[in-house]
Parts: sequence; structure tokens; C-alpha cells
Amino acid sequence: MYNVSIIGASGYTGAQLVELVQQHPELTLSGTYVSSNSADANKPIGELHGKLAHVDATLIPISDSILESLAHDVDFIFLATPHEASHDWMPLLTSGSAKVLDLSGAFRLKDTEVFEAFYGFSHKQQASLDNAVYGLAEWYSSSIEQAKIIAVPGCYPTASLSALKPLGENNLLDSAVRPVINAVSGVSGAGRKASLTTSFFEVSLHAYGVLGHRHTPEIEAYLGTPVIFTPHLGNFKRGILATVTVKLKSGVTQEQLDEAYKAAYADKSIVRLRSSFPKIDDVAHTPFVDLYWKLDESSGYAVVTSAIDNVMKGAASQAIQCVNIMTKQPIETGLVL
Amino acid sequence: MYNVSIIGASGYTGAQLVELVQQHPELTLSGTYVSSNSADANKPIGELHGKLAHVDATLIPISDSILESLAHDVDFIFLATPHEASHDWMPLLTSGSAKVLDLSGAFRLKDTEVFEAFYGFSHKQQASLDNAVYGLAEWYSSSIEQAKIIAVPGCYPTASLSALKPLGENNLLDSAVRPVINAVSGVSGAGRKASLTTSFFEVSLHAYGVLGHRHTPEIEAYLGTPVIFTPHLGNFKRGILATVTVKLKSGVTQEQLDEAYKAAYADKSIVRLRSSFPKIDDVAHTPFVDLYWKLDESSGYAVVTSAIDNVMKGAASQAIQCVNIMTKQPIETGLVL
Amino acid sequence: MYNVSIIGASGYTGAQLVELVQQHPELTLSGTYVSSNSADANKPIGELHGKLAHVDATLIPISDSILESLAHDVDFIFLATPHEASHDWMPLLTSGSAKVLDLSGAFRLKDTEVFEAFYGFSHKQQASLDNAVYGLAEWYSSSIEQAKIIAVPGCYPTASLSALKPLGENNLLDSAVRPVINAVSGVSGAGRKASLTTSFFEVSLHAYGVLGHRHTPEIEAYLGTPVIFTPHLGNFKRGILATVTVKLKSGVTQEQLDEAYKAAYADKSIVRLRSSFPKIDDVAHTPFVDLYWKLDESSGYAVVTSAIDNVMKGAASQAIQCVNIMTKQPIETGLVL
Amino acid sequence: MYNVSIIGASGYTGAQLVELVQQHPELTLSGTYVSSNSADANKPIGELHGKLAHVDATLIPISDSILESLAHDVDFIFLATPHEASHDWMPLLTSGSAKVLDLSGAFRLKDTEVFEAFYGFSHKQQASLDNAVYGLAEWYSSSIEQAKIIAVPGCYPTASLSALKPLGENNLLDSAVRPVINAVSGVSGAGRKASLTTSFFEVSLHAYGVLGHRHTPEIEAYLGTPVIFTPHLGNFKRGILATVTVKLKSGVTQEQLDEAYKAAYADKSIVRLRSSFPKIDDVAHTPFVDLYWKLDESSGYAVVTSAIDNVMKGAASQAIQCVNIMTKQPIETGLVL
Repeated sequence: MYNVSIIGASGYTGAQLVELVQQHPELTLSGTYVSSNSADANKPIGELHGKLAHVDATLIPISDSILESLAHDVDFIFLATPHEASHDWMPLLTSGSAKVLDLSGAFRLKDTEVFEAFYGFSHKQQASLDNAVYGLAEWYSSSIEQAKIIAVPGCYPTASLSALKPLGENNLLDSAVRPVINAVSGVSGAGRKASLTTSFFEVSLHAYGVLGHRHTPEIEAYLGTPVIFTPHLGNFKRGILATVTVKLKSGVTQEQLDEAYKAAYADKSIVRLRSSFPKIDDVAHTPFVDLYWKLDESSGYAVVTSAIDNVMKGAASQAIQCVNIMTKQPIETGLVL
Repeated sequence: MYNVSIIGASGYTGAQLVELVQQHPELTLSGTYVSSNSADANKPIGELHGKLAHVDATLIPISDSILESLAHDVDFIFLATPHEASHDWMPLLTSGSAKVLDLSGAFRLKDTEVFEAFYGFSHKQQASLDNAVYGLAEWYSSSIEQAKIIAVPGCYPTASLSALKPLGENNLLDSAVRPVINAVSGVSGAGRKASLTTSFFEVSLHAYGVLGHRHTPEIEAYLGTPVIFTPHLGNFKRGILATVTVKLKSGVTQEQLDEAYKAAYADKSIVRLRSSFPKIDDVAHTPFVDLYWKLDESSGYAVVTSAIDNVMKGAASQAIQCVNIMTKQPIETGLVL
Repeated sequence: MYNVSIIGASGYTGAQLVELVQQHPELTLSGTYVSSNSADANKPIGELHGKLAHVDATLIPISDSILESLAHDVDFIFLATPHEASHDWMPLLTSGSAKVLDLSGAFRLKDTEVFEAFYGFSHKQQASLDNAVYGLAEWYSSSIEQAKIIAVPGCYPTASLSALKPLGENNLLDSAVRPVINAVSGVSGAGRKASLTTSFFEVSLHAYGVLGHRHTPEIEAYLGTPVIFTPHLGNFKRGILATVTVKLKSGVTQEQLDEAYKAAYADKSIVRLRSSFPKIDDVAHTPFVDLYWKLDESSGYAVVTSAIDNVMKGAASQAIQCVNIMTKQPIETGLVL
Repeated sequence: MYNVSIIGASGYTGAQLVELVQQHPELTLSGTYVSSNSADANKPIGELHGKLAHVDATLIPISDSILESLAHDVDFIFLATPHEASHDWMPLLTSGSAKVLDLSGAFRLKDTEVFEAFYGFSHKQQASLDNAVYGLAEWYSSSIEQAKIIAVPGCYPTASLSALKPLGENNLLDSAVRPVINAVSGVSGAGRKASLTTSFFEVSLHAYGVLGHRHTPEIEAYLGTPVIFTPHLGNFKRGILATVTVKLKSGVTQEQLDEAYKAAYADKSIVRLRSSFPKIDDVAHTPFVDLYWKLDESSGYAVVTSAIDNVMKGAASQAIQCVNIMTKQPIETGLVL
């Protein structure tokens, strides 16, 4: 059994992590934390997240001394915290034997200039950044296995890269035409907070972050080619559907395309290659990535759609997959029951 | 043509009033206002309410001098403001020839103690209170016609009283058993503001204000008998469905019940006596009240359901009905096209 | 390990049972069946229920010979079938050693006249009816433990009785005033079928089955007193919220009320006594019943709300609870992870 | 005043047309019809469409003799009928003085082979096809004004072409890269019928008709260039959001792009050029097209989003716009109040 602590348990990802740790046969929850000045400090977790009303856990306010002792006392620390908090706390949290799974964006990119441009802060943790491994579980398992710090991927990049990497890695993309990613996310993606933008009456399908969203450089970095990424806010609670339109190299056949996906995900229990275009509900509350694709051979354009639960595969369950890799358990342990 | 001004046009009711005034053949919009320290001051109204993107109106910050000039310069003032603002501004607004339609709760009840207990403030405007007429259009048209101040009814009381008054006025209710009103409101009822309670992810059907909601004394005052009223927040944007369970006096027949409703609403164009139990969408974006009922003669229990759009008949369109009464136009003018 | 088969796996309850059996540590799925003339026969289950795309199971068309062999070969048979099918097949299914959990309404009531009046068929299976035990798990566990046939309760009765039985059993209800149950169900309650009534565009909160729903006699039979029950269709997929208004006997205090609930559910892991009024999402996708209540001591009226997932505690997870009781495992085995 | 009849009033578009005709100052409703073997024949329209409960109109079963008399007796006939019905009835309906607005797809394309491939029937009405004018109101008003038959555009083409034509007409598109249109439609787009696909529980965002939807040739025909069009079903009732990604010719600036839209829609009251990316609710229940766009000058890629109400601008209100053009009234008459 491994001891795990969750920092940032007042948010939706934190709450999901609590659920997943509770149901995991090899993990024991040892502490749920919130920031020291959180209005939620010292509340029972079930008061914030009604679904967890039966869970006996309190939201402990974090402090430097707690951070330090966690670094030595637990096996895994999940950081479901703002980018800046993850950035600032990482050196202390990694000063002991604990391994850290950071669900913020603070360690996902190697190029520090991107943080200034897209995240609004200047990155000072070069050493941690050098050590961090990108936690896209199906693609980087060997480095994940060895890592001290996992930068758990963003939700949109997880959906997008799951669809695109089989094409990129097999060199099937026509480099003259950028892949176009249109994605719609449920409102949980915006986090648990009071905001007019995400108030019930105001939510209605629309594009945002057009030609400038911070997940664009993340997708491009791990795909290795520029893309046009347009996120949308949808009127549902959980899930992302990414619709990816690509132009393939001249002469690529449907068979080659099928083969690329089958080869990439042959033995991957979390990625489901479907027989029709998936819908959000197929994956909501699950750890799965569902993929389906179609090619118009005459024009060379193909459309791939990728569905995930943004709070699960887009955050919490992907972090658990990484822990499973690091502890050499089957990757779906505690996730597919 | 009558000139009308709307104070509180940043909210959902205010925006609805703008729409209704625009489409009314006898009303001209002369000014949309917000409180002087509103973050929305001086913005075009379409920036807040995308549906009004084609409307040329700016949100003017209100001031005492504007309040005073409105009192003399316009025919009707709509107050879509917090209770306290309506309370404080009423003497100044009624100092000229303008008539005021107050959509807050500040003048709906005659008993000032209720304000202290249910609204959290002490009422100081006895004179205005004495002059105010309750604007339930189908039931108080003769006093509305003469009034200087209209207290436009609350959304839940409108739905509830529309269902119950035909029974109360015809003396059909068994006084030993309280009517039970269960009502579900769309989220617009909570107003336009950032709040965790009404954030999209958090909204999910639940009861609130149980055995203590401020609309209870309003319903009881105008029905004349105590009730059990339980409001709920529903996962939709507009509308209220009130399900009213009553015990009728021994021997009351289905025919008597039918007759009570038909007589009450025979010539009322806004109340639709339906042939099946109405749904929210039947009335959303409309000024209508839809009613249907069923009696179990053997037990004497009857169930009545009442559906309205909370922003329309529960607020804005009822205010327009009152203006139509005050200007001796057909009551549905500008509402049923 | 126990072998279980599911008949009616094309429906939402059947699909939920597949999920629950898969994740249960002591149950093995041995066969998912549909009616012999179903359009879904011989399809992989994941084609109907995208969420189960990773499950290797086919929908086998049922036949008399299969029914008979199941009766001898498996330990538990779940019937997620129409009332008439359960009624007709029960003698054959109970002819061997298998125990049957019937999720239809065919064996929930002892009074056969009710079936004629409320279910539209004449009951011919007196012997099975005599043997059937009502599977409300928190209340009838000792008879469930011995039973051959479990009539798994209806969704509305589960929500309603969970709220009302602590009051009825403690003799707190004023018998002169009927409890009023207003309940709103998600659309899954209507089953998986093409119907204009449950088409997306048409669904909008409304009452139905007023003063005549078939769950009324079921609630009354197990509460022991008449009620007014008004179901509603809500615009959400899963869950029921029942709002129960009762008049208590003169002098009953809040403390007595609290005590009644605490005593009834003290050691019941599936019932969560909450500290505020629950919402549907607190229980969606979970096996829990969430309860909260408030009393107005001056009038003697109390309001209790009860939230369940209609497909889980209102059907599938309650059936699993019964299996847990029958196999002497902790009641939450395979449900609370 | 002009007399209009609506054939196909049992559907959502037909019902919307009834509303629009009722509120139009120059149109009089003279007859609402359904197919002769419709289950809805002879019902009051309010029984099907609760929102129209106050409208005094009955669904008259159509017959050849009625078709013929309509051709001579009314000014405008709206066909909210299946493609095949419009196809078959057109010669008779145009045998008199009446003008016909066909909201089906039967007369939208000049190339008859497309009907065979995308609509599944062989087109036999060459003469009517030759006379039909495509009713995209902002772009073809001079031919609409003279037409006997208007083929009212499809919902997706209306949203897509409104966004793309200013770019195409100004020759701004890089012809080497196809425009990518991702659009999400509300469920009303599927029409009023019982279907598992559009049942409430099943609806969840997903792509359909990928690389083969019948609106693709329609968009391409009126844009004049091939596109990749991917429609999606969204979990809302009304509205379409089309997100269009284009590569512009080298050197095109944001200013040129802005100018193209402003010039195209300068005097068009129904198209609103917004100051931020529109959402579905901004246009739901309205006749408007809302547009906003952004260009990344360095890469030459631009994203345009277009929002319409599919039942209004995507069908019924666009038909009314055409009538306004044909009767030389301001285009927004009866639509923007």
C-alpha cells in the first residue's frame, strides 16, 4: 500500500482524486489539504462535494511545515492547485522521498518563455522543470516510470494528442496544412469558483481563447507540429469532445489510418477504438479515451474525434495511471473495475 | 405613446423589460439605468445581454438628480432593483407625475414586521407602502388602474396564487389542511451575479428556503390562509412550475372545481386553462400562466399545476400588464402578438 | 464467487447491472440476455451502451430453454424486464436453485387487484407472489436474506419510503392529513425507447400520473397509510428528488424527528443523513439515499427531501444490496468502493 | 395584408412559422395543414405545441384538391414538409398565383445528381428546379424578389455561408487549404419525431454525418469552393454554432478581414457583427445571425464563429425574410419588434 496526499481537495479535480484514491486497492488516503487561507479550510470534504458526504476527511490548511513533512512521509503527492502554487511549492515537495503528480500547468513545458506568454508568470524552477516528465500515460510510460515529478497533461491536450499522435508518429500528416482541433469542454474545466462566465444562466455554447489558448503550445510541443486549436465552453458538466480535422499525405489510405490507431493503442486498456463516433456520455465518469475516425480518400482529409472526461482522463484518472506505472501495476488498476 | 425608464437594466428582469418595451406599440424606452457604482455602468446593454446586441442603449449610472428628474419627466418607471434600493428611492421617484412599477419585494406586504423577519431590513416608507397596490394583474385590476405605486408580485407567488385564488375565493379549501406548494424555479430567479450556488457545475435540483422562504408570507397574505411552500432550484434557465396539493371541502366535485377556474379566468387572455398538465417550455419566453388540475373525489384531494416564465409573468410581463391596465389598453398589448 | 445472469440488458437498468456486477468482488457475469425478438439481439453490449464499449458481452436472445437452464445453472438472475415478462417467466426461472431479483413491478404487491387496476394485466402467479419479498434493503433485510424471489422496489417508492418509514414506524404522522410526496425523476426512468414524450426537445418539467400513478399503491402498502403522490418528469438523465411534506402528531419536536432518522439509519451505510437539503448530483451514479428534513414546530408540518439515483438505488444497486444480504456480505460490497 | 398557409404545421419549423405569421403585421394565417395520414390530423395545434395553446388553429389533413385551391387562393405557401413531399407537390402548388417557400431541401441545388447521392431520391421536377431561387436573404435578395419558388436554405448552410461568403466574395481564401466548418446543432434540427437517437437520455455531444452530410454540397455550391463540414448534435434544444477555420491568402490583414464583414453586412439588420465570440443563447428565439472573427496574421489562419437559431434564421424566420423581400417590406418586418 502507498500513502498519498492530495493538495487542493476543494476543487473538482481534487474531489475526483479523493474518490479514485478511495477505490484504489493499493492506495491509502493520508490527508486532504487546501491552501492556508481558503474559505474551505477545516471543513469536512462532504460539505463542499456532496457526492463525498460519506467520506471522513477534513480539508486541512496547508503550511510550509506540512509541505515539508509530506515530502518525507508520503509516497505520492497530488497537486490539484493553481499553476503558481505548484510552481512555488515544488522544490520543497520534492525535497524528500515523495513523488509529485502536478495537475497544474506549471511543469508541462520545457520552454520557460511560454509560461510568461501564456501563463502570466515567470518560471523560476529550472531544476524541477528539468526533472519533470509529461504524464501522457499511453505515450511516455518509460520516462514516467522513472520520474520524480510528473506534469499531468492538460485536458484539451490529452484529448487532442490521443487523436493526433498516432498520425504524427507515423508521419501521415501533410505538413502544409495545419491540423484543426475544435474542442468543447464541460464547465467543470473552469474549476470550482463563483464567476459570472460559468453561472448557469450564462453558459451557452461559444468559442473562447481563440488563436491564443495556453493549451496550444502544449499540444504543439508534444505533437511536434503547429495546430489551430479552438476551445469552446459547452452546456454540460463533464467531458471534452475534440474534433480533429487533418490533411494526410497524398495517397494515405483508410487502411493505413486504421493501422496507425490499432498499432498505437493495441495493448492500451484505457483507449477504446470505437466503431462509431463517440459521444461525451460514453466516457463521462470513466477513465477512457474513445476514438473514431474517417478518411475521405479522394481529398485526403480525415476527421478524428476524441472523447474524454476532462476531470478523469483529463486530470485525475490520468494521474492515477501514472502512479500505476510508477508502482508497476497494471495501468487500469483502480480505474476499470 | 408613453415614456418609460428602466432602473436595474443590468439584471435579467431589466433586460427582459427592455425587450418588452421595445416591442410594445405604445411604449417608448427613454433610458436604461444601473446603480451608480455598478461595474456595468456606461456599457452598451448588448455587451451584458448578448440577446440585445442590436439594441442601442447604454447603462447610465443612476444618481439622485436623475431619480428626481425621472419622477417628473417619464410616465412609468420600472424598478428592477434590490429590495433596499426600491425602498430607499421610492419617495423621490414618486415625487412627480411618474408612476412606479417596483419589481422588488419592498412594497408587496402591508405588515412591516414581515420585512424585518424575511427581508432583513426595517421598513421606513410607510406612506409609500400605504399607496402601493399589489400587481397581480388578473385579480387586482381595478386598484391597479388607480395606483401610483405597483408592487409587482414575486415569481413564486404569481404561480401559486394563480392556482390557488380560484379555490380560495370560491371557499372550496378545507381549512384544516394547509395547501402544499412545491415549486421549481429556473436559475434566472437567482439573478445575474457570480455565485458558487448558481454556477453551472453546482446547479442540480434541490429544495431551499424550506419552511422559511420570504414568498410564503406574500402568498399567505393574498390567499388569506396559511400554506406550506417549498421552493426548489432546477437545472433550467427560465420558468417556474408550481405543483399545488389541496384538500377541498367535503363534497366538492370535479365540476365545481372546473367551474371555479373557468369563472375566474373566463375573459383573461394571459391565463390559459389547459387540457393536460403544462410543462415549463409551454410558457418559457411567454407572458402566459398555464393551469391544469385534477381532483380525487373520493379523498377530496386535488392537484393543480401552474407554469409561468419567472422572468416574464413572474416579473417583467406582469409589470407590462399593469401598465396596460393603467393606460386602459387591452391587457395583452405588446405581449401576445 | 457467485454466477449471475442479467435478462433485459438492452435497457438502462440492465446496463447498470452489468457495470455493477463487473465491479463486484464476489459476482461473475455469466450471460446478458434480451428478449428473443429484440432488435438488439446478438449485438455486442457496447454498441447499445457506449459506456460499456470495453465490456466483452453479447446480447443473447432469451428462449424457454435458456430460462430453464439459467434456473439451474446460475446463482442469481436479474430480471430487468417488462412487468409482463417477469410475470410470465417467474415460475420457470424459479424452478431450480437460482434466486431471482425482479426489477419490474410484477411481484411488488400482494393484492392482485392492484395489478389489474394499475398495471393493466391480470396476475396469475399467486404462488410466486406469495414467495416474493419486497427488497427495500434497509427495512426488510431479514426476509430478504431468506427469499427465493426479491421484488426490487420501484424508484419512486424507494425514495419516498426511505423518507417516510422512520416517521411511520415511530408513529409520528398525524393520520388526519395525508403525506404529500412531490417527486421529480430523470428521464432514464422512462426506459430506453423511442418516444416523442421523452425526446430531447419535448422534455421539460411537468407533472404526470397525477392522482393515479402505479407507485402510489406500492408506497401506501409499505408505509401503511394513504399518501398523495405526484411524479414529475425533469430535464436531467438520472436521479430522483422526492420532497415529502407531512403533518406530524401534535407536540412532536425537532429532536424526536432527528432521533427517528438517526435510529432508523444508524448503521446503514447506504443512507446518508445530510446536514443540508441534498441535490440530485450528490447521489447521481452512486448507490446512496440522501436525506434531510426540517420541522416547523409551531404548525407541526415537516418537509423531508430524499435523493437517489433512480437507476442505482432505485433499481440496480438496490438489487445488488439484496444479493449482498442474501450472501451475507456487507451491504455496500461492490457499491461503496 | 397577405394570406399565407403553412403545410407541415405539426413539426417544429411549422409551429415556429405559425408564431411568426401571427406576430407579422402584414400576414394573415389562412390554414395550417398536415399530411393526410398524419396521426396529428384534426387536432388543435396547441395540443401538439403547448406554446401555441392560445392559438385557434386546427391541423387540417392535406389533399390534392386542397393543394390545388391553395395554389390559387393564398399569396404565400410555406412548405415545412419532408423533401419528397415538397418535390412531389411543387408543380400543383405553383399552378396558380401563390408563391411557395419550401423549407425542405428539395429545391436547393441545381445539380440533380446530388439529390440521388445525398437525399436518396431521384429528382423529377426539372422545371420547378429551374425556377427555384436560393433564399439566403442577405445574399440573393434581387432574385428572391422576382421568384415564384424559394428554396429556403438549410440551417447549417445558413450559419456557414453567413460566415464564409464575405471571405469568398472578396477572394480572401487560400484555395490550397479547405475551410473547416465544425458546427453543433440543437436537437430541434432533427425534427419532431420519436427516435432513440434524439431521446433525452441518449443525446450527448457527438459528431455525425462526417465527410458525407447533405449540407456539404449545398455549402460548396453557394460558396463556390470545397469545404470540410462536420456537424455535431449538441445537448440543447435550439441553435447552431458554426466554428469556421480558414487559411487566408498570404498577406491578408485583420483590417481587410474586418472590412470584408462590415461591407457585406453594413445595412443588413439581421446580421449582427459582434464584439466578442457569440453564444447560442444570444440568438436563440431570435432571427439574428451573430458573427465574430479573429485572425492570426503570422500564420494566416482565421477563426470565424457564426450563431443562429436553427428553427428561426435556419428555417422559419429566413422564410419570413424572403416574404418581406418579395412584398418589398423592410427585411426585419415582423421579426425584430
